[in-house]
Amino acid sequence: MSLDPKIAARLKRNGDGLVPAIVQQHDSGEVLMLAWMDDEALHRTLTTGRATYWSRSRGAYWVKGDTSGHVQHVKAVSLDCDGDTVLLKVDQVGAACHTGDHTCFDADTLEVTITP
Amino acid sequence: MSLDPKIAARLKRNGDGLVPAIVQQHDSGEVLMLAWMDDEALHRTLTTGRATYWSRSRGAYWVKGDTSGHVQHVKAVSLDCDGDTVLLKVDQVGAACHTGDHTCFDADTLEVTITP
Repeated sequence: MSLDPKIAARLKRNGDGLVPAIVQQHDSGEVLMLAWMDDEALHRTLTTGRATYWSRSRGAYWVKGDTSGHVQHVKAVSLDCDGDTVLLKVDQVGAACHTGDHTCFDADTLEVTITP
Repeated sequence: MSLDPKIAARLKRNGDGLVPAIVQQHDSGEVLMLAWMDDEALHRTLTTGRATYWSRSRGAYWVKGDTSGHVQHVKAVSLDCDGDTVLLKVDQVGAACHTGDHTCFDADTLEVTITP
């Protein structure tokens, strides 16, 4: 079993064969994290309903929550207009971020200082 | 003028010196698009309040809306936990997608078919 060829044909991967996946809480709309997928990770995500990524640091597939319990149940998946980004809408169990924060974007807000 | 060194020190760029920027409508929470920034694009975004990207296809800075009129007014900017992704919350004027769709993720929804 591998990724549907009709989907694979639309994917535009980077030099490492990966596309970024934006992960959003399906009901609140919060952006939780960004991770990376290859064809197989996308295939597993679409056919298991469990968000599955390619861990660039570990060089291995990563089923979100297998270690932490912080599972992402997949509600919807879409490709962007040029096929180089995936949007996952998920139901996040517990914290999305490995730091324990609810999202990976909670801790470091940059100041917008509009200068004339 | 260039990017605040305290921010620059936290950024983890890819091999091309870029980080992905997730762009979200600030009030509805819709994810509009994903684009790319280098240090200068982030600096301009933070200091002009207009979302500014590095166009990989054109090899040039790209102030969203300068051509289309579909400006993004920046409401908030944050970095993720490992400094390799930016989240922009914007007020989008008109369509975010160059196809005329409201978001770049409207047109291509993938079927989630959980197989036993």
